[in-house]
Amino acid sequence: MSLLFAELGVEVNVYDPSQENVQKLLERAKNAGLSSKIKDHSGYESICKALGTRKVFIFSVPHGDVGDKTVDGLRPFLEPGDVIVDASNEHWRNTERRQKRLEPDAIHYVGMGVSGGYQSARHGPSMSPSGSDIGLDTVLPFLTKACARDVHGKPCIAKVGPGGSGHYVKMVHNGIEQGMMSTICEVWGIMNKCLGMDYEEVATIFEQWNDRGPLKRNFLVSIGAHICRTRDPKDGSYVLADILDKVVQDVDETEGTGVWTCEEGARLHVPIPTIAAAHLFRVGSADAAKRMAVQRAFGSRTQPGSLQLNGEEKSRFINTLHEATVVSFFLAYIQGLHLIAKASEEQKWNINFRSVMQLWRGGCIIQSDNITDVFDKAYASDTVDTGNLLAHELISHELSSRYSALKDVTLRAMGVDAPVPSLSASLEYYKYMSSTDLPIQFMEAQLDYFGEHMYDLKSETPGKPVTGKHHFEWKPARGIHET
Amino acid sequence: MSLLFAELGVEVNVYDPSQENVQKLLERAKNAGLSSKIKDHSGYESICKALGTRKVFIFSVPHGDVGDKTVDGLRPFLEPGDVIVDASNEHWRNTERRQKRLEPDAIHYVGMGVSGGYQSARHGPSMSPSGSDIGLDTVLPFLTKACARDVHGKPCIAKVGPGGSGHYVKMVHNGIEQGMMSTICEVWGIMNKCLGMDYEEVATIFEQWNDRGPLKRNFLVSIGAHICRTRDPKDGSYVLADILDKVVQDVDETEGTGVWTCEEGARLHVPIPTIAAAHLFRVGSADAAKRMAVQRAFGSRTQPGSLQLNGEEKSRFINTLHEATVVSFFLAYIQGLHLIAKASEEQKWNINFRSVMQLWRGGCIIQSDNITDVFDKAYASDTVDTGNLLAHELISHELSSRYSALKDVTLRAMGVDAPVPSLSASLEYYKYMSSTDLPIQFMEAQLDYFGEHMYDLKSETPGKPVTGKHHFEWKPARGIHET
Repeated sequence: MSLLFAELGVEVNVYDPSQENVQKLLERAKNAGLSSKIKDHSGYESICKALGTRKVFIFSVPHGDVGDKTVDGLRPFLEPGDVIVDASNEHWRNTERRQKRLEPDAIHYVGMGVSGGYQSARHGPSMSPSGSDIGLDTVLPFLTKACARDVHGKPCIAKVGPGGSGHYVKMVHNGIEQGMMSTICEVWGIMNKCLGMDYEEVATIFEQWNDRGPLKRNFLVSIGAHICRTRDPKDGSYVLADILDKVVQDVDETEGTGVWTCEEGARLHVPIPTIAAAHLFRVGSADAAKRMAVQRAFGSRTQPGSLQLNGEEKSRFINTLHEATVVSFFLAYIQGLHLIAKASEEQKWNINFRSVMQLWRGGCIIQSDNITDVFDKAYASDTVDTGNLLAHELISHELSSRYSALKDVTLRAMGVDAPVPSLSASLEYYKYMSSTDLPIQFMEAQLDYFGEHMYDLKSETPGKPVTGKHHFEWKPARGIHET
Repeated sequence: MSLLFAELGVEVNVYDPSQENVQKLLERAKNAGLSSKIKDHSGYESICKALGTRKVFIFSVPHGDVGDKTVDGLRPFLEPGDVIVDASNEHWRNTERRQKRLEPDAIHYVGMGVSGGYQSARHGPSMSPSGSDIGLDTVLPFLTKACARDVHGKPCIAKVGPGGSGHYVKMVHNGIEQGMMSTICEVWGIMNKCLGMDYEEVATIFEQWNDRGPLKRNFLVSIGAHICRTRDPKDGSYVLADILDKVVQDVDETEGTGVWTCEEGARLHVPIPTIAAAHLFRVGSADAAKRMAVQRAFGSRTQPGSLQLNGEEKSRFINTLHEATVVSFFLAYIQGLHLIAKASEEQKWNINFRSVMQLWRGGCIIQSDNITDVFDKAYASDTVDTGNLLAHELISHELSSRYSALKDVTLRAMGVDAPVPSLSASLEYYKYMSSTDLPIQFMEAQLDYFGEHMYDLKSETPGKPVTGKHHFEWKPARGIHET
């Protein structure tokens, strides 16, 4: 990001306790002809003095303690009107804690989600800043120059809202990302392992999906194709083929956003099963040695078998896979957007969802042009219930025609033992959110049986989700001497 | 519980700010001939004075603030050596906070999980107390008289460990309960809606399962039968038939344990998909009005259809349902027990799992005699890895022979659009925890592509789940003026 800012003509002053990082940056600046724009500093005092008054800082560090230490380091040299932009994947509550700490001295702490990975950071990422109006207004003109652009050239940035809302939106972005990534990796598995398609064939399909239709310009589909075609220049072998099947990003604590999304879903009572199933799949995969021990104990393998489809049948099924991917992507988005809506209500952030759609249009991992279009249109309409997107006609229209595809893919994959945790979670979510005849009445009866939890009657008009009005004394409580 | 204690010969002094509650209790005491043993007080001072020195308090109140206020109310009258037993469904961190607050004054705060609902509370519940040794030793002799008994007459109580470990174990008990309850309600739905079995037929099946075999003396199966047969004396109709299909217990905040279990699973990186899927199913069901709006938007219903099985085929499938229920129950247990193991390690609680098995043997909601036997035997063996129970031969033996049943039930139910969120989550968990060839290698490649997240190679022996050692530069980062 320092290089990006330098390229935009800004004098960038940098300080990093790691001399190695600084050297790497200066070398890359030299190669890009940007050396004159980047000045290295030995500590917080030096960099703060060089910046004069009305200073603007941007940093991106690991969440938690490191962020606190960075603020501690800067604190003695800060003056009213200074702005700190925390571009880390920070927990929104840490962001708000620091905002409250600095606010009395009129120092503005902007929490900013930045998405797109290291390529986007260099080229222009998607940005979701939040905080005080003064803080945001100070940095927005500049950040707007640096951020990603959508296909129409519009910047992918927005004033998300007050407090930690920017980091919240980024956290949910990463939650949705988990749901989408699990979906596409399950679909990749089905093509590769159950349809016997080699990497190049899968790449061709992903390229087609990315070129036109509902998955047009979908970042994960697009890089999926690239990954399938990538060979190691050393020996010409496919890089993907050698990678071990485990994801440790959540377990090793390098990244908190996926964990926090699940915690927030639980805390705010928002059903996010596609995202949660994807997260738990990653977590379950992390310890490959444990899985080896389980497989030894089981004696046999539950490995994906062949679907034995050829020619016409296979092409048709690949279309079905396409449709199923679309639904599961939509549902991951919907679950995440419901979570943002609930948090926005709780925290009184008043988040504008069309702005969120705009900042997800380019530079970020969940970018998916045509999917975003549908949500944007729904949010623009008068009839949208931001907490119940499935009930909006534009969205239900996209989903209901594809239910059978999601069902077909899940059934066939399960039939040959291919793992489909997020696809099946999407299917179940679809079913139970659109049903008015769930078997859960039996659970409600059980809870009332032993817990006196109370229930509503079918004959009553459902109101708010509050405790029911009826209890049946299924089995009276008895003492130890009574029977 | 006051009545239970009175029945055991204890002089019970009670104080409840709600006069209505007190009147109800006194009336029930009168009916049970226990009036002389129960004395009502007007406030904290009065009750504390009546108890003299070395006082023992037991309360069960809503979690959070109410518990704090109760402690505040008692605080002025407490003396060193007094013991408070918090028998609420309290969050373990609140328990530990209160323990730390009272510890300097040698007041012992025992956090005690109590399971079994209101019938058990009266008759003898399952108890999981934790705290200081002095506190536990003071109250255990008495609590051991009051708690539930297993089939051999052994008390269902144990010194779980220090701190909030007792409430932690109870929290996970309730998480496992959610996974089991969702499983059995899905299975009830399949029998009732897809096999066309009336309530009495389902009851007969549940009674058979509860009588013998792996689900012998399973509390939820047993009351499930009772619920199916229960008619309203007013008009002879089945009570179950009139209950609306929604569970609000998590959403209305009356009960935190299911939420906390999901949060803890995320925080400690323990895959608990059966439990999480069950939880999200409940949460998704809570707002029936929203689901009605979704169904209107979708225009068509995705309601369970008929499986069209008769005679021999139907009986065989009911056996398959039995087996699938067993696996899903086992997996809910395993996920919860892994969570306890991880927390015990983190918090240095040194929890004895055979004690936990003992206290779950009677009086509690997840009671399931033969399932507990298997875990108890596994825990008694030298080869158990408490964080990887699937790898133990006694457990894998129970599961691997039933995989095909779980798969068959999930496939058939999905085929006719019956919701199976926890059964399918169990199936997926089973597959990915026992596989060494997951499609997740594709996800790991994507994370490395945009996030430089590093990976391990298939050719390397899997070690601890830590960040990988390799990165491939799939696509170098480029500036805005480079292409």
